[in-house]
Amino acid sequence: MRSLGVCYYPEHWNDNRWPVDLRQMQSLGIRYVRVGEFAWSRFEPAPGKLNFGWLQHFLDLAGSEQIKVIVGTPTATPPKWLVDSMPDMLALDENGLPLQFGSRRHYCFSHEGYRNECRRIVIQLTEAVGNHPSLFGWQIDNEFGCHGTALSYSTAARGRFQQWLQKRYQDVVSLNEAWGNVFWSMEYRNFAEIELPNRTPTDPNPAHRLDFQRFSSDMIVEFMQLQIELLRRLSPGRLITHNFMGQSTGFDHFAAGRELDFASWDMYPLGFLASVPLFSDEHRLHYLRSGDPDYGSLHHDLYRACGRGRWWIMEQQPGPVNWAPYNPAPFPGMVRFWALEAFAHGAEVVSFFRWRQAPFAQEQHHAGLQLPNGEPDAGSAEVAQLSGELPILADEKLGRGDVALVFDYEACWTIEIQPQSKQFTYPEEVFRFYRAIRQRGLDVDIVPQDADLTGYRLIVVPSLPIVRPEFLEGLRRTSGTVLFGPRLGAKTENFQIPAKLPPGPIQELMPLRVIRVDSLPLFAPQKVRWGERTYTAHKWIEHVDTDLEPIVRYEDGRGALFRCERFLYLTGLPDDQWLNAIIETLITEQKISITDLPLGVRTRCLGSLRFFFNYNPHPVQLESIEDLEVLVGDYKLPPAGVLIGRDTRRTP
Amino acid sequence: MRSLGVCYYPEHWNDNRWPVDLRQMQSLGIRYVRVGEFAWSRFEPAPGKLNFGWLQHFLDLAGSEQIKVIVGTPTATPPKWLVDSMPDMLALDENGLPLQFGSRRHYCFSHEGYRNECRRIVIQLTEAVGNHPSLFGWQIDNEFGCHGTALSYSTAARGRFQQWLQKRYQDVVSLNEAWGNVFWSMEYRNFAEIELPNRTPTDPNPAHRLDFQRFSSDMIVEFMQLQIELLRRLSPGRLITHNFMGQSTGFDHFAAGRELDFASWDMYPLGFLASVPLFSDEHRLHYLRSGDPDYGSLHHDLYRACGRGRWWIMEQQPGPVNWAPYNPAPFPGMVRFWALEAFAHGAEVVSFFRWRQAPFAQEQHHAGLQLPNGEPDAGSAEVAQLSGELPILADEKLGRGDVALVFDYEACWTIEIQPQSKQFTYPEEVFRFYRAIRQRGLDVDIVPQDADLTGYRLIVVPSLPIVRPEFLEGLRRTSGTVLFGPRLGAKTENFQIPAKLPPGPIQELMPLRVIRVDSLPLFAPQKVRWGERTYTAHKWIEHVDTDLEPIVRYEDGRGALFRCERFLYLTGLPDDQWLNAIIETLITEQKISITDLPLGVRTRCLGSLRFFFNYNPHPVQLESIEDLEVLVGDYKLPPAGVLIGRDTRRTP
Amino acid sequence: MRSLGVCYYPEHWNDNRWPVDLRQMQSLGIRYVRVGEFAWSRFEPAPGKLNFGWLQHFLDLAGSEQIKVIVGTPTATPPKWLVDSMPDMLALDENGLPLQFGSRRHYCFSHEGYRNECRRIVIQLTEAVGNHPSLFGWQIDNEFGCHGTALSYSTAARGRFQQWLQKRYQDVVSLNEAWGNVFWSMEYRNFAEIELPNRTPTDPNPAHRLDFQRFSSDMIVEFMQLQIELLRRLSPGRLITHNFMGQSTGFDHFAAGRELDFASWDMYPLGFLASVPLFSDEHRLHYLRSGDPDYGSLHHDLYRACGRGRWWIMEQQPGPVNWAPYNPAPFPGMVRFWALEAFAHGAEVVSFFRWRQAPFAQEQHHAGLQLPNGEPDAGSAEVAQLSGELPILADEKLGRGDVALVFDYEACWTIEIQPQSKQFTYPEEVFRFYRAIRQRGLDVDIVPQDADLTGYRLIVVPSLPIVRPEFLEGLRRTSGTVLFGPRLGAKTENFQIPAKLPPGPIQELMPLRVIRVDSLPLFAPQKVRWGERTYTAHKWIEHVDTDLEPIVRYEDGRGALFRCERFLYLTGLPDDQWLNAIIETLITEQKISITDLPLGVRTRCLGSLRFFFNYNPHPVQLESIEDLEVLVGDYKLPPAGVLIGRDTRRTP
Repeated sequence: MRSLGVCYYPEHWNDNRWPVDLRQMQSLGIRYVRVGEFAWSRFEPAPGKLNFGWLQHFLDLAGSEQIKVIVGTPTATPPKWLVDSMPDMLALDENGLPLQFGSRRHYCFSHEGYRNECRRIVIQLTEAVGNHPSLFGWQIDNEFGCHGTALSYSTAARGRFQQWLQKRYQDVVSLNEAWGNVFWSMEYRNFAEIELPNRTPTDPNPAHRLDFQRFSSDMIVEFMQLQIELLRRLSPGRLITHNFMGQSTGFDHFAAGRELDFASWDMYPLGFLASVPLFSDEHRLHYLRSGDPDYGSLHHDLYRACGRGRWWIMEQQPGPVNWAPYNPAPFPGMVRFWALEAFAHGAEVVSFFRWRQAPFAQEQHHAGLQLPNGEPDAGSAEVAQLSGELPILADEKLGRGDVALVFDYEACWTIEIQPQSKQFTYPEEVFRFYRAIRQRGLDVDIVPQDADLTGYRLIVVPSLPIVRPEFLEGLRRTSGTVLFGPRLGAKTENFQIPAKLPPGPIQELMPLRVIRVDSLPLFAPQKVRWGERTYTAHKWIEHVDTDLEPIVRYEDGRGALFRCERFLYLTGLPDDQWLNAIIETLITEQKISITDLPLGVRTRCLGSLRFFFNYNPHPVQLESIEDLEVLVGDYKLPPAGVLIGRDTRRTP
Repeated sequence: MRSLGVCYYPEHWNDNRWPVDLRQMQSLGIRYVRVGEFAWSRFEPAPGKLNFGWLQHFLDLAGSEQIKVIVGTPTATPPKWLVDSMPDMLALDENGLPLQFGSRRHYCFSHEGYRNECRRIVIQLTEAVGNHPSLFGWQIDNEFGCHGTALSYSTAARGRFQQWLQKRYQDVVSLNEAWGNVFWSMEYRNFAEIELPNRTPTDPNPAHRLDFQRFSSDMIVEFMQLQIELLRRLSPGRLITHNFMGQSTGFDHFAAGRELDFASWDMYPLGFLASVPLFSDEHRLHYLRSGDPDYGSLHHDLYRACGRGRWWIMEQQPGPVNWAPYNPAPFPGMVRFWALEAFAHGAEVVSFFRWRQAPFAQEQHHAGLQLPNGEPDAGSAEVAQLSGELPILADEKLGRGDVALVFDYEACWTIEIQPQSKQFTYPEEVFRFYRAIRQRGLDVDIVPQDADLTGYRLIVVPSLPIVRPEFLEGLRRTSGTVLFGPRLGAKTENFQIPAKLPPGPIQELMPLRVIRVDSLPLFAPQKVRWGERTYTAHKWIEHVDTDLEPIVRYEDGRGALFRCERFLYLTGLPDDQWLNAIIETLITEQKISITDLPLGVRTRCLGSLRFFFNYNPHPVQLESIEDLEVLVGDYKLPPAGVLIGRDTRRTP
Repeated sequence: MRSLGVCYYPEHWNDNRWPVDLRQMQSLGIRYVRVGEFAWSRFEPAPGKLNFGWLQHFLDLAGSEQIKVIVGTPTATPPKWLVDSMPDMLALDENGLPLQFGSRRHYCFSHEGYRNECRRIVIQLTEAVGNHPSLFGWQIDNEFGCHGTALSYSTAARGRFQQWLQKRYQDVVSLNEAWGNVFWSMEYRNFAEIELPNRTPTDPNPAHRLDFQRFSSDMIVEFMQLQIELLRRLSPGRLITHNFMGQSTGFDHFAAGRELDFASWDMYPLGFLASVPLFSDEHRLHYLRSGDPDYGSLHHDLYRACGRGRWWIMEQQPGPVNWAPYNPAPFPGMVRFWALEAFAHGAEVVSFFRWRQAPFAQEQHHAGLQLPNGEPDAGSAEVAQLSGELPILADEKLGRGDVALVFDYEACWTIEIQPQSKQFTYPEEVFRFYRAIRQRGLDVDIVPQDADLTGYRLIVVPSLPIVRPEFLEGLRRTSGTVLFGPRLGAKTENFQIPAKLPPGPIQELMPLRVIRVDSLPLFAPQKVRWGERTYTAHKWIEHVDTDLEPIVRYEDGRGALFRCERFLYLTGLPDDQWLNAIIETLITEQKISITDLPLGVRTRCLGSLRFFFNYNPHPVQLESIEDLEVLVGDYKLPPAGVLIGRDTRRTP
């Protein structure tokens, strides 16, 4: 069953407005409401002076409207009195200077005192509403890592990091060896000597940084776990989630997701387009009011994996937002469009942020489904339309994707910590591989290293510096084609070059060794010839030592693409054209059917349904498709247009 | 009576040079000299060891040459021993790190201990020279806010801010409500809990920032007042001023100006052109040696308002300066040219900075009227020529301008604090409106919200987020045309969206409501059609709800320009061409006479005189004008050329 | 005798690998190995727990292979326990925040406690190996100033700076006068009041900054001296060096060099090309795999002067490096090519960094002569070839260069401290003058102000703000042509404008006075005509007062190039074309023979040998040269190609 939700802040409005709002939500077709995640100062206006009555009252009212409630734990915004009672709970930035109260996310994840306060407020919250019949579930905190807060350089963090290292390495000699601390006399005599990796005159040891990144990720997961443990015990039967963010790689979301009943994420397509560094201004202009055609989908597919199949949109942009360098209005229809695309990727609920635009504080330029004065804003009508269309989707089950794309948080950290080429960023390469596949009309499953890969006819691995044994094992069990990008198996677990040289363990699948990396500026692409066509590789070229005959070569004769049975290895980063050609060739070879799509149009299957989405600022005429019964829309797709058809061959 | 002045530092030179210098000043026609504003270490070389003898001697010598003296209070440069006696008087930057002694402006305005020291030195200074017959007046401190020093994040500032808030809001509940602190649990339990708005993980509450900006502005005015109060009492009959700066919006200069007998400002046209972000490199090349044709005038007109009609140039560039990224030599003639333009805008005195180029310390590359060795630099001859021309201007009185332009410091802060579009800056929009009017040959009066607006046939309001009741009242009393730019009445006094939506109180004049803001990147201008012509609006487009029929529309049909009787509302920021067309249309409609000006030429009336200024690097031929008796120059204007004529119809 | 060396880290590898490595080095022709410079934590794993046995063992093994050893003192990497024992030894950055342990160079040069620790470890090191027969010499510390560590704003630095100033000025009144502290009341009452010149609201006094720069340079030299003094006493007969860096101007390398037996420097041509701001992307693309044709040579010629004729390459890039924004692979042959060019400029030894690529820690992407697994990397074969070619060079002695170029560290600091034109950087101007001469095929000697200049037919002085009496004296003793660039004699020793105006003391050679500086943006070049050709000057134009007739004029008639007998003065910075024309004219006039070189080819004489180097990515055909007996290579030079011929007229 698919449904709609909304984010609401009862504490912002007079309580006589609450029943009106809930009635209006219900009449738009909204069935879930998220509340409470920033309300600590209203739950506990002064130390120990608790007040959950208003929340209980709101839950009662929601019940009257058959609206289910997700309550957020308020730990993202510890109130002033709490901060003043233990000022060292504030996170410290990379310069060792403390963050300050006055917005949100000012706490350090490692601070034991603050953790205790979080435990206490969660217990008290569950005592108050944990078994209320309107309570559907819980959201832990809000957007972990937002505003660059995944890392803290506080004294608390240092102490916990030392413990974490002790647990990992047992003795300091092993740590010194694992990190290679003999280099530059960085050796420690005991764990208590270990500093955080900040403010060094030049780069700290990359192994030090990677472990600090892992530790910081673990602290976030641990911080979440301690709340989850209480909620499971004290509020049984309620589902637990966290709302992840877009382009968020500061902690391991797969690890976090394993603790949750379902994943959710916050989807702001126009804000992303304007602020994420992937896009050119030309691209930003073309998709100004619709967003990038693949950026949202990539996250849908990623967070579906984080939620092990179950996921929501917890916050979706309902109009202009407030936080990007510029904040355009979406095309009319985009609010419905984005939600339908999320459902097409398997979302269970799409929840809008926020019900009503706040006339005060930091986000007053962020649109809601209502204007600040309570009149409906443009998004409301789209939500109403959408709720009328949802029954079509109700019973469709998402199938397995055509292609698996391996994503890895550690890969991102490793490349970020020691880029070797300033232009090589992991998120960009993942995005380019994902886009190349999606432009061919294929459905993608994004998977972690330990996923079950059997059954996929094509598996792509844009880059994976640290290859886990379980991944090697997983590959062995597959029979599909596997495309590896460069920088594969380039590091050991401890951020060292493997003894047998890269690609390390992958040498068991392909007999080649990387003996040199040629990292290049953007203005020096290297030509490759493939059949009649000329393409380029850029940024990163590996010289390999192998007996394999390359199937594509650089101008200087070195191998650019190697194949060993069903495994292919790219020694460089292909440009978009070459990447498209490679993907197309492999898909064709696998006899995976390709949908020819006009530029800016995307398609997705959900059970027996096939969706088409037009991201362009102009109408697009699709060719009609045999065996497709059109249910919604038309082959002529206007801007923001969606076609939904049923594949009569697939009908369940 | 109009006159010339110069800035002089007796303490930099052997005292046997003083009479020579004063004699030379007198012979160039200089009648005022400013001294002393950085001389604290010479007034008080050690705590309590006072020495004003040298200043008294200088005043005596000045008297012999009939030169009047403005003495600057030396509070911009507290000496080392004073700083060491109370190190917490140092201002703290946004990161909470202290500024250090070793240049100037290192103090915090809120520090009570330092304020006491300032009171003491001012009293001692007045005791020494406050009634000296050569003393014409006082300058308080020097260039408040220079080097980004308007805001300090010190403990002293925090304490005073808490008091200021308590006075403003009485109780903390009102403050929490006014700021909307319920958002993100930012509520305070008492005023002592309130932090300064710095170092928050993401944006602090904009209401918090606006109040801190208002407070900081008040601290500067208060700091000035405490000196003024003493001076009025102890040095009666002397005029008091402060030297404001160009593009300085860190505090409310109207509020500061109200305390002064006249305003003055420091005018560095080539430094501004090179360093202010408004200008393109192409523009910077064209006006390399003359400066922007409107930037100086805008400030003349602004500071005339700050001084309620009375104003000086306290410092004018006499050759290359030292502080811009590059520092070209002005065209020969520009020193005279700039001074004449200031007089044309009503300046009483134009004073040059500085008499002699200092061969040491920070400003040794800043030209003077003399070279470091005492020979005349190029500017000296121009000053001599100028003083010969001044009698022509002597009895002319400045009339009211053709157009009023409403300027507001709070508008600047509000937009800066919550831009919503990174490209929207208030100073740029004000400049563009001002320029469009000046290019049509009109005289502009820049006015605050509480100005008397009656009599103006055209009033322009580039943007005004917070509309004051007195402004609304003022508009009602006018009968001229009023052109509003967007972002009007968009916020309440407390930085909230008005309950009735923007333009808030202006809805009493025009029945429209802004229901959405579409903020756009520079690369996405939106077309408008007006009659036969196509223009664009950019950066900021408002969607309005109104029954008014737009007189100009965007391509999508929405209204771009609305009119309701004599009030016009622009929903977007017009490009330069459209802005010019709008201004031209309104002027023509008002039958205000327009002077056709070649590019880079400007004109100004002063009483019966009309001036023409050629800012171009090439000569320009003006068409001859009926009823104009040419007094100075010629219709063929060379670079740096000035024509002064008497309108024989206006002769007094 | 010329020879090869390598940098090796025995502490990184199992000691059973040491004899293998030494054997392989020997077989490649390597005769010197540098070790130990980062090994403090292995010399002294805990306070007082010394362990030099492994180093003694390594020296024994090296002896068996007839390889001589340079031992680096390990003071660039004080170990953790040492830092923890005196945390205030950490350097402080410009914001007053401490650097932290975890990489290298984290210490403050002024800290007396740390200096004592350095003395102690040096004594203990010499006791252990100071008289070992394999010990050839010592390297003091490593790359002083690397990672911007020449300046520290610590308490220790402040105390020593005050002492240094007291010694320099004797009394504080003299200091106040020298600095012009009366300006802005910056006067001090005693030396203890003096702050470091950081964190001032605007620029600190430039004289203050210059003295702090001089002091910081002196601290580095002093830090070096205290080690040298011990080594000379305790390890007699061993040569002492330091490994300087490229584009390193943070301290006076001439002063440092005077303490050494020979200079050495670390040469990374591709890293420099990618990271030094001098180069355009077009240039970076052309020389992507060979490096800039003049940048390395400039440093060879500079460090030859620092070593008073004796110098080494201590570290040479053997493949891709790890620290630039991108790190390409060199052309095959470049490792040999760069080494031959260093020898052609007089290097005694070229030592490669490093023997084997480290698989761990910060530099794991830095190539070695071996791969991490011990197999030879591409550079090894080139080293073998090179060692076979060295006998040709063995007995050749470097002659005096054709042209002397005066280089001055203080000039660099002075211009950096008070640029007056953001675009004017001293390193860029020196480089442009150097390149113009080298492109004409001439050999350059880079010399300090106090060099013996007699015998040079052409002396160029790109810029020299502070002219020393010894330089004036030196010029008087010459008879060659002297070309001065602008900004000559512009400041006194105390950073003041000279009483007689610039060029100060140079007025004794040329009767002209600079009366104004016109500093210009890059987009405003000023045209000059010279004969039939038009060129431009840019960035910096001086107006001069003189009776000399200019030999080149700007469009406005002012003088651009003046000549007074054998002295020429450029009032502006010439563009490359004009600079080339000036150099060509002066060379022709001096009848210095010019070699016509294709673009990207350079030539150098070493005794009777003449070398040609092709930096291009394509082959170049040289015209054959009479009297040149080709020994190595061919007139057709491939990329990375070197031709060595013997001038049969010069044969010794």
